This record gives sequence, C-alpha cells and structure tokens, in this order.
Amino acid sequence: MDEAALQRLRSAFDPERFRQQGHDLVDRLADYLGAALTRQAGPVLPWVDPEGQLGNTPSISEDAGPEVPEIVGDLLHRAFHLHDPRTLGHQDGLPVPAASLAGLLISTLNNDPSVYETGPAVVPIEVRLLRWMCDELGFPGDAGGVLTGGGSLGNLTALLAARQAKVGRDSWTEGNRPGEALCVLVSEQAHYCVARAVKIMGWGDDGFVKVPVTDDFRMDVAALPGALARAREAGRRPIAVVASACTTATGTFDPLPEIADFCSEHDLWMHVDGAHGASTVLSPQYRSRVRGIERADSVVWDCHKMMMTPAVLTGVLFRNARHSYDTFRQEATYLFEERPDEEWYNPGNRTVECTRSGMAVLLYTALRVHGIGLFRDYVTRCFDVARSLSDLIDASPDFELAVEPDANIVCFRYRADPGIDSDRLQSRLRQKLVSGGSFYLTEAELDGNQFLRCTAQNPFTGEQDLCDLLDHLRAEASALEERSGTTNASGLAQEG
Amino acid sequence: MDEAALQRLRSAFDPERFRQQGHDLVDRLADYLGAALTRQAGPVLPWVDPEGQLGNTPSISEDAGPEVPEIVGDLLHRAFHLHDPRTLGHQDGLPVPAASLAGLLISTLNNDPSVYETGPAVVPIEVRLLRWMCDELGFPGDAGGVLTGGGSLGNLTALLAARQAKVGRDSWTEGNRPGEALCVLVSEQAHYCVARAVKIMGWGDDGFVKVPVTDDFRMDVAALPGALARAREAGRRPIAVVASACTTATGTFDPLPEIADFCSEHDLWMHVDGAHGASTVLSPQYRSRVRGIERADSVVWDCHKMMMTPAVLTGVLFRNARHSYDTFRQEATYLFEERPDEEWYNPGNRTVECTRSGMAVLLYTALRVHGIGLFRDYVTRCFDVARSLSDLIDASPDFELAVEPDANIVCFRYRADPGIDSDRLQSRLRQKLVSGGSFYLTEAELDGNQFLRCTAQNPFTGEQDLCDLLDHLRAEASALEERSGTTNASGLAQEG
Repeated sequence: MDEAALQRLRSAFDPERFRQQGHDLVDRLADYLGAALTRQAGPVLPWVDPEGQLGNTPSISEDAGPEVPEIVGDLLHRAFHLHDPRTLGHQDGLPVPAASLAGLLISTLNNDPSVYETGPAVVPIEVRLLRWMCDELGFPGDAGGVLTGGGSLGNLTALLAARQAKVGRDSWTEGNRPGEALCVLVSEQAHYCVARAVKIMGWGDDGFVKVPVTDDFRMDVAALPGALARAREAGRRPIAVVASACTTATGTFDPLPEIADFCSEHDLWMHVDGAHGASTVLSPQYRSRVRGIERADSVVWDCHKMMMTPAVLTGVLFRNARHSYDTFRQEATYLFEERPDEEWYNPGNRTVECTRSGMAVLLYTALRVHGIGLFRDYVTRCFDVARSLSDLIDASPDFELAVEPDANIVCFRYRADPGIDSDRLQSRLRQKLVSGGSFYLTEAELDGNQFLRCTAQNPFTGEQDLCDLLDHLRAEASALEERSGTTNASGLAQEG
Repeated sequence: MDEAALQRLRSAFDPERFRQQGHDLVDRLADYLGAALTRQAGPVLPWVDPEGQLGNTPSISEDAGPEVPEIVGDLLHRAFHLHDPRTLGHQDGLPVPAASLAGLLISTLNNDPSVYETGPAVVPIEVRLLRWMCDELGFPGDAGGVLTGGGSLGNLTALLAARQAKVGRDSWTEGNRPGEALCVLVSEQAHYCVARAVKIMGWGDDGFVKVPVTDDFRMDVAALPGALARAREAGRRPIAVVASACTTATGTFDPLPEIADFCSEHDLWMHVDGAHGASTVLSPQYRSRVRGIERADSVVWDCHKMMMTPAVLTGVLFRNARHSYDTFRQEATYLFEERPDEEWYNPGNRTVECTRSGMAVLLYTALRVHGIGLFRDYVTRCFDVARSLSDLIDASPDFELAVEPDANIVCFRYRADPGIDSDRLQSRLRQKLVSGGSFYLTEAELDGNQFLRCTAQNPFTGEQDLCDLLDHLRAEASALEERSGTTNASGLAQEG
C-alpha cells in the first residue's frame, strides 16, 4: 500500500480531528435540543414527499466531501423532531441527553457484548440492567434474560423459548414435527410482530389463534377456554398465551392475573408482550395496571419506548433464567466454551444475534446519572399527560374517545357531521396537521373505524399543547366540512 | 405531578447540561482515541475475570449519581481497546471517528426508519446506501434490500426470502407443510448463525446439509451433486445453497461461480453470507476473491465488520428487490398503507424488526466525509496486513499456517515439541497473551486441531507489531515448554 493511502487513513482516524468535529457537533446538537424542546426547530415534521426527500439526499461519491457537522446540519433540517412537545405520534422513546451522549461512547468503543472478551465492561452492565429489570417486574432471584435489538426480536426469542419448553422434546434440534401444528393464543389487538414471529417459525396463519377482545379492547378472558378447545378440536396444539401489556393501538392492558390463572390451569406458557407497557412497573401511581406480570414465564420490555433510551434496547426476561439458556443450543468453537449454560458472561449463546452494540450502556448511563426516580417520574408524567388529553376530549362534545386510556396512548376522533365519511375525515385531519407541521400524531383502525391516535412520550407536553391540538383539529375539520358543503359530501372522501 | 418532579425532568433534558457534558465527553474520547491508537491506553484487554468485573460495576440506584463523563471515564479503564494496533481478534469493525460521531447524532435524534414519517431524513439515506451497495456488488438496477441489525438477522431474512421464493406456494401464511422437510446446503465451515436461522424456522438439524470442504477449507463443489442427491433420497427438500464469503474461522471464500452454476442448474436459491467478506468488492486489488457474488439471489453484508462502522449495520441485498417485498406479508393498520409492495419508503414492511435505529447514518456520514476511496484503501490495507503476517509465519520454522489467507483472517499455530499437547499449548499461549494484555487474538478449531487466529482490522497494525506478536508467542511457548520439561509433559495440559 502506498504511503499516501496510509496517510489518508491516518487523517481519517486523527484524534484531534475527532475532537474538533466533536465539539462542533455537540454545540449544534445542544442548540438543536434547545430549539426542539421549545418548539423552535421548525415544523414538527418538515413534510416533503418521499421522492422529493430522496432527491434532497446527496449520493455517495468516490471522493471526500464535507465534514461531519455540515452533514449533520443538513440532516437536522430534514429530521423528525421527536423532542418537540407537539410530537404525539408513535411510541418512539424520547432519549434523555445522558443516554444520547452514551451513544457517542458506544459508537466509539464498539465493544461487542456477545462474548465477554470483546465487551468486558459492557457485559456486566447488561447483567446489572437485566437483574434490575427482573427485580422491578417482581421476578424471583433465579430470573434472568438477555438484551436484544427490538421488541419484534424479543417476542420471537420468547416464543422460541416457549417452543423449546412446551413441546416436550428438543424442538430446537428436531424441528417441527409433521402434523404437530403448534400455535399460540393471542389477542386480536396484539402487535403484528407476534404473528410475524409465528410465521418466521414456520407455523403460518394457523400458528396464532386470535382471541376476541371486549368493548374496551382487552383480551376477553372468558373467550379463552373456547378458543383453546376449538384450536385443539381443529388438531392444533396451543403452547402459549401472549398477553399484551399494553396493546399498540389503544395502549390497553390485557387482564394479566386471569391470563396467568388460565395458563397455569392448562400448562401453557405465559408470555407478556410488555414492549410498551412493562415500564409501567416503575410508576407507583400506575403500577397496578400490570399486576400479574410477575407471573409471566417471559416478558418483553422495550427500553426505547418508555425508558428515555434511543432505539433499540429490549429486555427478554424469563421468570426462570434456565429457559434463556435452553432456547438456542449451538456450537461455535471460535466463540464459546464447551458448557454454554454456565457462561452467563457470554450472552451471544442466548440471543438471536451474534454481534450486538453496547446498547445497555445507553440506559445504564442514564440510570446512573439520574437515578431510578427520574424514570418513575417520567412514566407517571407521560400517563398523566394522556389522561389530561382524554379528559379534554371527554369534555368536548365535538370529539369522542375510542376508549378510556390505560397508558399514555389515546385514540379518539372528531365527530363528523352526518353524511360525512368519518373515516376519511379522520385521515384527512391527520394529514393536514402532519403535513402542516403543527403536530405529529398517528391513526389506528379499531373495529373497522378510523381513529386519531396520540402517544404522550414527551413530559413537557403541556395542557396548552393539548388544547391547541383539539383546536387545530376543529379548525381543519370546519374547513374541510365547509368545503365539502359547498361541493358535495363525497368530494371530501375523494380528496388528496 | 408535583412541580419538583417536573423540574427534575427539565434538568435532565437541559440542553446546556448536554452541551457541557458533551464537550467533556468529546475531550475524554479524543484523548482515549489518541492513546489507544498509539498503544498508550494500557493493556489491549485489561483482563479481569467476569465475576470480578461484575463486582467492579456499580449497581443501579434510586437516586442521582455521577455525571456522564465520570461514568465514561470509569468504563474506559475497563474496556476492550479496539483501536489499539495490537488488537487482532474477532471481526469487530474499527469505527472511523466520523462514524462514531454520527452515533451521537442518531442517539440524539432517535429517528426510526421503520416508517418514513418517523425517519424522513434517514429512510432516503438507507435507500442511497442500499443502492450503492447493490452497485458495488454488481447487481442489476432492479436489485434492492433492507438494512437490519446484524449478520445473524440478515441470514435469517435471506433464508426467509428463499423459503418464500422456492417452496412454490405462500409459505409465509401457510407455514411448514407436514413432511416437507425443507433444508439448505451449506459448507461445514459456515457461521453458526446459518444453522441457528434454520432452527428458528423449525427445520431442526435436518434443515441443513453440511457440504464438506477441501483441504483449504473451501466448499467442495464436487461434493455438491452428491449432497443434493443424498438429501433428496432421504426425503428432504433442498431449496438453497449458502455460500460463505468468507468463512468465519479462516476467512476463506467459497467458489462462487461454481456454486452459482450449480444453483442455476438445480433451481436452487443462491445465498452468499458475505457478512465479513462482501466488503472485498471495494478493493481493486482483492475484488477477484468474490467474483460471482453478482450472481447470488441474496447477499448479507455486515458494515460493522469491514466498513469502519460501529455495530450493528447489515445489508440484506437481493438481486431482484421483489423478493424483499415478498418475504413478509403483514397488516398493521396503525403503521402501513394498503399496498406494502409499493412502499419503498416504509422499510419496516421488509425487516424482521419493527423499530430500528438510524444505523444507516453511521456509514453514510463516514462515506460522505471520506469518500468511497478511503474504504477501498481500508479493505486493501487490512488484507495486506494479513498477508504480511502470513509471510512472516511462512518464514518462521517454529510456526505454521493452517491455510494461506484469502482475506484478513490468519489461522496458524506454534509448532509444539513432540510430546507436548499442541492443542492445549495454543490455547495456553492465547490465554497468556490475552490476559497479559500485550495482544488480543482468538483461536479456532480446524479439523479437530486448535489454531491461533488473528483478524487484521486495524490499518495501523505494522510489521513491527506482527514480529512482536510472534516473539511474544515464542517467549511464552519457551517458558511453558521449559516448565513442562522440568516437571512432565502432561503438566502443561493440566495447567490453568
């Protein structure tokens, strides 16, 4: 290799260049955070259609270009401003700055905790974090688990553990047996990733038996025995019940104690998809929502939802850690020792992934800096904000709730005039607000009807923001209805 | 919520606190980088046994503690120093500072590219990156794919696509059919995650047919027809061949053109696990190693291995992008629109994961800052370093290579005196060097024999480092042999 090429490599790795660009980056991001948190960063979502946005994104080229801060500056203008208190959309966690700063650490060190040797400082942090999470869930001393890259992977991991535990033979090495027809019972409101996990495992659509929900979108436990019986009659073999704590669309908690009783009675694995709602254990005010979670065989808990941690960091927690060691059985002479079940310090034996980032450090750092107390306050505050919004909606005759919120997710809709297509109206209202950049919110279909959907993830969203949200929706609805009135009722539905 | 709690939250999100801690952090990390790159950061791996390390790791507590830089300072002392030129271990990518800095950006913005709305600036960056990767592979214009969290997930995704494409029906919704006995043909040197993916899909041990390798650890293509015939005779149904480019243990490239011919002849899906070696396409000097990769149906390419990107960032690239849209078919009214196959801008339709980090920004930023040229130099340089090491070993009568290196992975061993247990000796040598902190290297079992294993990932590893490595090994071997001589030959094997 010629010296010039080596010199270019040296320049790229120059620590003083890192220092200079790093300071510049920190200042830009501090300015950005200050702006976004006070609604000064521009439209919540600076709307450009995808094709246009792609056109604005420079291609990769052979030669060197601008420095990091310049690229970042451009990107900040096109980003979605999660820290804006008027972001009320998906369940994307609002990262606390201490966790964001830890992101720089892990992306610099790049210590991989799949094996202890490459992550000597990170693996013990994972262990501390998992132990703490198990304790907060109310799990016993022999509980344990792993950290993985997101709730979808987490639910897949838990169902693989359920398969290995409940099939009654080594399903990992023996595979699906002809005619075995394994399946899980799951609420029709469960996150799509449960079905995705089942289909990855090759169980197809028959792999999940949908249990109906009651009017408040909670799994109807009275329907469980019938669902189980019908599945068995059809030659299927249910091995688990997947409870949602909470559901994605409405943030509703399934009745965990009753589901635990049912699982215990019928020797079924109880898995709780607590991707969003497991964090509720932290809030003294709202903890009762997840009563019974301590009886689950496995719980998935996304820290990048309600734990102020950047994506992604998910705990897969087993009431009995043994199941975590039993899930995968594999040989890899260049990585693991001979008795993997004793290697707590080589987590790669127990995750779908091999290499992982030092993701645990993000949350651990924030917890050490701020203490658990801040996280208790955060969860409580977000739930409180959602209740404020639902109270406002309850008090507004022109809006209606889909259901009283259990958590920090609120589904509601504008009461459309007779003759107006309500579903199209809700979607249009959302489009107007989102593309206008005043608020970010989402929508959900419930029982075939379209609803607006807000998730309160920003503790600084205030009463005035919520009032303004409803006012903006009212104003847009009036404009749309008026326009519709001057043309025809169906014109509205055909717009856009 | 009381005002004091809200005030604590405000303080945690204070942008000026972010700024102050951020500047401190940048200085500490710049100092650290400067030290590690020049071997001044202490032992390469400051060895402490796992239990002891856990004891050194503070627990999480209810109350606020030290600030970020203090926590980081402690962690840096216990970390594995990847940037030290004497780190010659696993295939953990050496992050270039521009990519590390981008880590702070993504962990601050937390823009999730699973759907366009929450990742408006990130999704187009993913598209740019994927397009560029497809071009570098030599894929046609209608190629495409997704970014996912690691090679294990990537290989699983590719095999799910193969299943959907080759089973001849909708295996996603219909599931495994009784007696179908799907399987893949794969070299006995493939990464363990291929077997793991197969077992996740419920195919068990019968789901992979091991194809033997030639003396140089390359898939023996002459053995493919027999392996296919025997699998079919046994009632199994092979749908794909998984080629390694390169293998994990020895960094050997399977003969891709011959495998492509075989797949084409027998209507099998050709998947290339290029987690480590797909980056070889970037090096003009070494590109011929992966000739034929452009004929694969799917390729997995880990950017966190040879692309100077922190973990994790993996491309799953399909010669025909259609397969990426066909792999998962799912409904989620709160996320996706009705015709998912047209939604290139909502990648969550096509990944195992739902939420992902803005991982693409890490590599994109580094590529924009430095240009593709730097990456070409980097790959070439790492391969050159490995050739220097293998040349040194070839010239040293007291060492022997397992095989001439194709890539930047070198397996070799110290020639033990007769009567000495060579396998134990290699392991002991590694333990000595690793626990002593002078070098980090790994080991691998090949044909039942233990070898030392080095991966050259640091472009600043020089000739002197390599000479010193062999000298350190020699010195330790002499000490061990001498000690063994004064007691007995078996004493060595029983040590430690």
